[in-house]
Amino acid sequence: MDEVLADPIEKFIQLYNRDYGVPLDLQLIPGNEIFEHVPEHAKDKWFEYINEPGFFRNLTPIHGSIDAIRKLQEKYDVYIVSAAMEFRNSLIDKYDWLAEHFPFISWKNIVFCGDKIVCADIMIDDRVKNFAGFNGRKLLFTSPHNLLLTEYERVNNWQEVLDKLL
Amino acid sequence: MDEVLADPIEKFIQLYNRDYGVPLDLQLIPGNEIFEHVPEHAKDKWFEYINEPGFFRNLTPIHGSIDAIRKLQEKYDVYIVSAAMEFRNSLIDKYDWLAEHFPFISWKNIVFCGDKIVCADIMIDDRVKNFAGFNGRKLLFTSPHNLLLTEYERVNNWQEVLDKLL
Repeated sequence: MDEVLADPIEKFIQLYNRDYGVPLDLQLIPGNEIFEHVPEHAKDKWFEYINEPGFFRNLTPIHGSIDAIRKLQEKYDVYIVSAAMEFRNSLIDKYDWLAEHFPFISWKNIVFCGDKIVCADIMIDDRVKNFAGFNGRKLLFTSPHNLLLTEYERVNNWQEVLDKLL
Repeated sequence: MDEVLADPIEKFIQLYNRDYGVPLDLQLIPGNEIFEHVPEHAKDKWFEYINEPGFFRNLTPIHGSIDAIRKLQEKYDVYIVSAAMEFRNSLIDKYDWLAEHFPFISWKNIVFCGDKIVCADIMIDDRVKNFAGFNGRKLLFTSPHNLLLTEYERVNNWQEVLDKLL
């Protein structure tokens, strides 16, 4: 979900702006995580933000994701698989967020997990750690933190996903 | 989780007892679900009970499950895979219940889903619908509702699971 369907980076920047004056038009350097762009003493703050109830509830959907998932559903069984289990308070927020923005995804097709031990043909993910042990086709969805990786089939946006899969 | 690690039947009986006088020592007839043992006008009430926040929070662990999972962990990567997604309010209750009774299970090894599309070698489940599409070894964990099924490898309790897998 995060950085593929939903945009937590924008939210992090807003919170770091509010608390530490980080500029709202911050552009992440390729390969960097958000915490590498904030003052030293605020580096761990992201963990507090992300654990706060509501953090995941009002994220902006990634451009084109809603239409793309709807189109992919015409050809594929689409499952939303999120490593939500790391953050207790994210569970209900992510559930409600999906119900709002992706109401056409059935509860049967939602998976909140830690390790992504799913059986599937294709996985679209921004974190290569989630590809570990996955035997299907892996599509690395571009996000600033993964821009320097070259050994994966990359998709830069949802239009490119559709071009490849439809 | 339900009827394998946690006991929702006991809780249902307590609630039906409180509201409709169903006897606390009710024994389910083999093949029956709980709603087949309650007055006609209370048949749908289980759905209301199960959607109430807190329903899943204080269920009794199934006898032997905690020790058995701990022992299985010595030989296997054990994942808890629960079809929790059907009931929005169950998510946080199930998460907290696991943290209380199975604190030795990492968040990485917990999966809340609809369809159980997991890649694994062995699945222990009381609902045969969850075996659909699963290619590994299937162990049907005995529960009243599945007692009439004969076409699966059955385990009647956690000791039998250990006898088979250790």
